[in-house]
Amino acid sequence: MAALEDLETPVAVIDLDRMEAAIARLQEYMTGHKIANRPHIKTHRIPEIARLQLKAGAVGITCQKLAEAEIMADAGVIDIFLPYNIVGNAKLVRLVALAKRIRLSVTADSEPVIKGLADAAAGAGLTLPVAVEFDTGLGRCGAQTPAEVRELARIIASFRKLKFAGLMTHPHNEKSDPFVAEAKSYLAHDGIPVETVSYGSTAGMWQAHTRKEVTEYRAGVYVYGDRDSVRHGALKPNECALRVLMTVVSRPTEDRGILDGGSKALSSDLLGLDGYGAIEEYPEARIYSLSEEHGGVDFSKCGKKPKVGDRVTVLPNHGCVVGNLFNEMVGLRGGKVEATWKVAARGASK
Amino acid sequence: MAALEDLETPVAVIDLDRMEAAIARLQEYMTGHKIANRPHIKTHRIPEIARLQLKAGAVGITCQKLAEAEIMADAGVIDIFLPYNIVGNAKLVRLVALAKRIRLSVTADSEPVIKGLADAAAGAGLTLPVAVEFDTGLGRCGAQTPAEVRELARIIASFRKLKFAGLMTHPHNEKSDPFVAEAKSYLAHDGIPVETVSYGSTAGMWQAHTRKEVTEYRAGVYVYGDRDSVRHGALKPNECALRVLMTVVSRPTEDRGILDGGSKALSSDLLGLDGYGAIEEYPEARIYSLSEEHGGVDFSKCGKKPKVGDRVTVLPNHGCVVGNLFNEMVGLRGGKVEATWKVAARGASK
Repeated sequence: MAALEDLETPVAVIDLDRMEAAIARLQEYMTGHKIANRPHIKTHRIPEIARLQLKAGAVGITCQKLAEAEIMADAGVIDIFLPYNIVGNAKLVRLVALAKRIRLSVTADSEPVIKGLADAAAGAGLTLPVAVEFDTGLGRCGAQTPAEVRELARIIASFRKLKFAGLMTHPHNEKSDPFVAEAKSYLAHDGIPVETVSYGSTAGMWQAHTRKEVTEYRAGVYVYGDRDSVRHGALKPNECALRVLMTVVSRPTEDRGILDGGSKALSSDLLGLDGYGAIEEYPEARIYSLSEEHGGVDFSKCGKKPKVGDRVTVLPNHGCVVGNLFNEMVGLRGGKVEATWKVAARGASK
Repeated sequence: MAALEDLETPVAVIDLDRMEAAIARLQEYMTGHKIANRPHIKTHRIPEIARLQLKAGAVGITCQKLAEAEIMADAGVIDIFLPYNIVGNAKLVRLVALAKRIRLSVTADSEPVIKGLADAAAGAGLTLPVAVEFDTGLGRCGAQTPAEVRELARIIASFRKLKFAGLMTHPHNEKSDPFVAEAKSYLAHDGIPVETVSYGSTAGMWQAHTRKEVTEYRAGVYVYGDRDSVRHGALKPNECALRVLMTVVSRPTEDRGILDGGSKALSSDLLGLDGYGAIEEYPEARIYSLSEEHGGVDFSKCGKKPKVGDRVTVLPNHGCVVGNLFNEMVGLRGGKVEATWKVAARGASK
């Protein structure tokens, strides 16, 4: 087994003990609160990690794109929720083909999307579960009001080959439960039961039990951890499994250092944080700029500064995008390489 | 041949007529000004495109990382400049193995890097050309003063198995020529000739001939074009070959639309531009936010607004990162798919 020191940089590594602990911790919490755990695999995109999540007790997985779901199904996952509007003939053909193989559910937030799903399901002779996405804060997809949700649920229920599969949002906040309660009261009048209410986000995962309406939870980056999850109090730095190892390749001035990883290793996601990542060995250092293959670091506030050839360990701002930039992730245990996983669904955006 | 309309989104497409014109235009300019053209392939990472550049008259290519150079050499490219500090035993072993196969030159900006190169070259029994990188503005790698350059060139020249291969910077500006002139005058005293002076950047490519010292030029994104190159006046929008096609999958409010591509299609690079890309069909629209698989668009200023299922054509801010996010690039001519190229060096950051 290769040792940590033998890995060439830049390399994305996963502390397997930490990752397994994160998977167990979230599962235990969700089980304890009787919330179905349906992790979002768009963070890791690796079937082997999905299997660990399922083995721990997840009811299924969440995929963001159809192409991810196809790859996960090919790897043996049999229960997938796809909280995305599937639009266009080519994708609908793929969707129903996948729905014939596994337990698949989707979402919709408009009538045209629902009609497309209904036609595809009818054409394929299968019943497709469709949840309604609603928006209580992110300003992305989703119905804007409980009345809109009612209208969309009615449309879904009106199609013989669609099954209304509940409500979904990302993330959740204090408005989510009142929104759901109002939508449910409307739908009760229509005789349409709301069996599943699915909330998401790693940032708010430990608050899931305070939401009375939630029945299912989707967390993604909890499995890796990142600076953003630390800032939200979801994980401690020493609970985050993901790091990117880099080498100092230049020290052009007394204060400045250049790393051999840039935006193609960390992405340019700042997420409101200061700098593009945190360097464990130099907590006072600041990654002030990234070009594609260079990371610019200000070491001026560090008592001891690195020399050319020294290695550093970077906690990324955003674990999900890092998981998409590398071709493979290296799993470590006790400083040794235990697994090298291909990021099978890397770039699977269709 | 598939038609444009048949492509599933999100998809990165290249207008082959435009790309070929861009390659020819830059080559003609560089040839006309007797500057060696050595395009940087870190934009496209595709051997087929490198071959087009070489066929047009490029003297060789530039790669940012050793792994890219290995992939390009495997594809038959025989002259590669690697303007990067190669650090660490594992990489040095790979470097000299590659130098045995092709004409390879590298750079260095410090004594430790030069010593590593010298040991590796001596161990392999080959002579390695090493240029000195200098910095006249970017604040990334590179010697800070002409005196530093002299010192580094002397160190290179002192090793029997290294050959001093001139000077390199990225990008160039009004300080670059005076810096080079001063370094050259120092080195003339030492009897060290400076045969190659390599400048780079697409933004400044049409100003290359105004730099008296330059002998070789490295442009990367000129081959695709992007919003950043348009802003710098290097290409017109209708000269940019790259676009990302996306589908409107949600219209949650009157003004807001959601595209099926996000930071995994465009990256979060803003480069000081407003919004994450420009939509051709809706010039007044603004891509105000990206999550990984969703693009949030404000259509409020558009007279006509799209409906769910409509397609849009996005000019990205930064072509180089887009070239790394997709697994393949689709080449179009006359609205038909003529080529589908694997991004062979995608993720090749080691």
